[in-house]
Amino acid sequence: MDTFFNPRSVAVIGASNSPFNLGATICRCMNEYSKWDGTVYAVNRKGEDVFGCKGCRAVTDIEGDVDLAVIITPAGVVPDFVEQCAAKGIRRIIIESSGFSEGGEEGRALQRRIDETAREHGLRIMGPNCLGVLNAANGFSCFYGVQPDNHHEFLGSESGSVSFIIQSGGIVVIVLESFLMDVVKANKIVSIGNKSDIDEADMLKYFEQDDSTQVVAMYLENIKQGRKFIETARKMKKPVLVFKVGRTSEGARAAMSHTAGMANNDAVFDMACRQAGVIRVNAISELHSLPKMFTHMPPLKGRRIAVFTNSGAFGGITADLLVQSGLEMARLSKDTQEKLSRTGQIFNASNPIDLGPAISMQTFLEIFDILLSSDEVDGLLPVPSLWHPMVIEAIVELVKKCHHYGKPAAIYTPNAVHKTVNYRSKYQVPLFESPEEAVRALKVSYQNTLNLAMKQGLDGLHALLPGGGEKTCAGMG
Amino acid sequence: MDTFFNPRSVAVIGASNSPFNLGATICRCMNEYSKWDGTVYAVNRKGEDVFGCKGCRAVTDIEGDVDLAVIITPAGVVPDFVEQCAAKGIRRIIIESSGFSEGGEEGRALQRRIDETAREHGLRIMGPNCLGVLNAANGFSCFYGVQPDNHHEFLGSESGSVSFIIQSGGIVVIVLESFLMDVVKANKIVSIGNKSDIDEADMLKYFEQDDSTQVVAMYLENIKQGRKFIETARKMKKPVLVFKVGRTSEGARAAMSHTAGMANNDAVFDMACRQAGVIRVNAISELHSLPKMFTHMPPLKGRRIAVFTNSGAFGGITADLLVQSGLEMARLSKDTQEKLSRTGQIFNASNPIDLGPAISMQTFLEIFDILLSSDEVDGLLPVPSLWHPMVIEAIVELVKKCHHYGKPAAIYTPNAVHKTVNYRSKYQVPLFESPEEAVRALKVSYQNTLNLAMKQGLDGLHALLPGGGEKTCAGMG
Repeated sequence: MDTFFNPRSVAVIGASNSPFNLGATICRCMNEYSKWDGTVYAVNRKGEDVFGCKGCRAVTDIEGDVDLAVIITPAGVVPDFVEQCAAKGIRRIIIESSGFSEGGEEGRALQRRIDETAREHGLRIMGPNCLGVLNAANGFSCFYGVQPDNHHEFLGSESGSVSFIIQSGGIVVIVLESFLMDVVKANKIVSIGNKSDIDEADMLKYFEQDDSTQVVAMYLENIKQGRKFIETARKMKKPVLVFKVGRTSEGARAAMSHTAGMANNDAVFDMACRQAGVIRVNAISELHSLPKMFTHMPPLKGRRIAVFTNSGAFGGITADLLVQSGLEMARLSKDTQEKLSRTGQIFNASNPIDLGPAISMQTFLEIFDILLSSDEVDGLLPVPSLWHPMVIEAIVELVKKCHHYGKPAAIYTPNAVHKTVNYRSKYQVPLFESPEEAVRALKVSYQNTLNLAMKQGLDGLHALLPGGGEKTCAGMG
Repeated sequence: MDTFFNPRSVAVIGASNSPFNLGATICRCMNEYSKWDGTVYAVNRKGEDVFGCKGCRAVTDIEGDVDLAVIITPAGVVPDFVEQCAAKGIRRIIIESSGFSEGGEEGRALQRRIDETAREHGLRIMGPNCLGVLNAANGFSCFYGVQPDNHHEFLGSESGSVSFIIQSGGIVVIVLESFLMDVVKANKIVSIGNKSDIDEADMLKYFEQDDSTQVVAMYLENIKQGRKFIETARKMKKPVLVFKVGRTSEGARAAMSHTAGMANNDAVFDMACRQAGVIRVNAISELHSLPKMFTHMPPLKGRRIAVFTNSGAFGGITADLLVQSGLEMARLSKDTQEKLSRTGQIFNASNPIDLGPAISMQTFLEIFDILLSSDEVDGLLPVPSLWHPMVIEAIVELVKKCHHYGKPAAIYTPNAVHKTVNYRSKYQVPLFESPEEAVRALKVSYQNTLNLAMKQGLDGLHALLPGGGEKTCAGMG
């Protein structure tokens, strides 16, 4: 599987110098924009070079070795090119073309020809109807349509530690754009399209053993093989977030016309996620907003949250949200409340703690220590309004103290979203954009703690049973 | 009531040159930052001038007429100053000081003294424990704590047509900051604090007859007089949005410590909103994100929504959200689908319409006309990704066409929020920041249509009953 993300040589089949040729955008991106420095061949009828990539009339005409083929031609000729790849000895193929199982009987017949060739020659195929892969770490990407204008959104920023399995190109764009102004970035992105061969479970298995991936996030329109998905996900120690479209029959129908898979019954999908120990998210935005809770904060190990704010109304707002989410407002003892009161001019020392508007850096630091060291508190929901330059400096210190004490804080600054986003980017602190998002981050962190416990329990049980062993998931190369 | 927003002369009681004096920030804002050009007096022990405002030792020492007094002293001396105001003939008083009914028995005793003086002399009192008023149109504001750094957020931008009734200062800040980058702005903001006299119903009545207010938005921690609130709101023709804290007992407890009112039972509050024809919103952000649906789009008069997107996944996502919200996916006839298909290279002409990535301005315009003129469609949910400069130009045209056809579009551009916010500000088009927000905007617009119908029905019924007439709401000056 690693070859898909780290090839040394690639053939882009269908790349030519015709106007609006999508394959050409792939050649150009690989050869001109990205730091990846492998060899690229362009396969087209005329055998012409494309953006500096050597042109060939057929795959079998290529002289050097080829690790990976990217096919972006009309659907009708794809099966022939797959056969050429097999003949050339290329065993990894990404088919970006559409017009297969999502496109009626004719498309399904083409798909069957491809499947036969793949089986016969042991090929692994990604797609069809997909964008393929993007590896932010080495700069390799076979996404089509990346323009000089927007390539920095795709390949221009540093790589991070969140890897994505995404069935749709539009979602890739919004994730990468959002990461430009966030503290965590993408590591690898894979768009698996119709999943004729490689599916979400194969990718999960790969990302679990991929050292540079800390969190996996998925956008799915359907799950192909439920048992394989559950059994693979259940073995994962990394947090997995999933958003699935098709909660309603109207949404499911729309998804089906998009990537061809019948969206699964939503209640069944929900149950599968629970069994798999996968965290289901409620909005696309959560796929990029929540991972920083895992990458930039210790895990939440209990339900008891202490709220403190310099903007009184948000005490009540966050208390409502926490309780509605199933977390709890930590009950602070008299002793803790007295300690808090001694730090300075505090309006209200019971949880939610109202700091009032006038406060010093020293007071902030003392409050952090009191709350994070208290065995009455599992995590924090700080709501400090950025009204004074000192506040953002206090937040920087808070992040350090969270790591010191091993307890997380989901920080929401009650300011306009553009202001929050700018501060987050400038000071590289994990700020959330709404109180709802901060509470979700805590909830999801705690959910992951529970999932890990559940997984350990099952493994433990499994080991106790006679003949307990592994019997799942075909190995991937 | 208008005097509170348009005074010609104001006494700021408690403003001095002591360090950290909050009254001084009010004097400075009125005299230095704002375009409001009335007269300001500073009342303090030494009778010293403050930021150019003439100083006096007592209210009764002021020589000219005073329309409005703003009191910001320790709670203990407030009742004396209220008496001085009465003696001077000042009938409008804003008490910003805290320490009254939210502060235990001592505070309640002070409150009783103020109430007696007010009753005796026919004073109208706003607060205590509030920020008072801000009128963006004339630049008048008595908010304390506004600094040179942030005054532009409060008084620097143009005025708009949304007026706010807000029980908390923190919410004011987030609303004004957010409006800096939005297409609609605030008109008047009033922070009514503990509401010892003037309450949310009085303010609703005022905003209903205020020509420059188009939409009223409220943040409430409690409702003081349920019947008065319902009867006043029921008479309103302008949309009223309300967010209330205290859905859970923990949230209610936090709110109580903040502005002293017991938060009402949430189910009762919900019922009151329904009877009052008031729209309950789900998040603070909706108080500033949703009003533009009323100010920048025609009303939604039916449930049937057509979705179109150049980013396939969002067809399914928005279909799910629309159906879950109680709206409907419009069913497009064969005829309409054929018209759509003829406009150009469209992936899918049934609703949700998938435009595919390659599309021309002409195709966009034709699609807008076909959908907006169709009697199968009540409103649009366009999801155009801003991947090409043409797309934002098409959105500008779409807004014009919505007004032409009298049907709304809740536009969501599936891009990072900072990009959407920048485009919205630059092109002055009502873009929403998430698909969830766009669907809420449609839902809320339709809810307002239903509310207006309900109100007409009740009025009609009322007129038919013997002796039907008005018997509510004490008149406000």
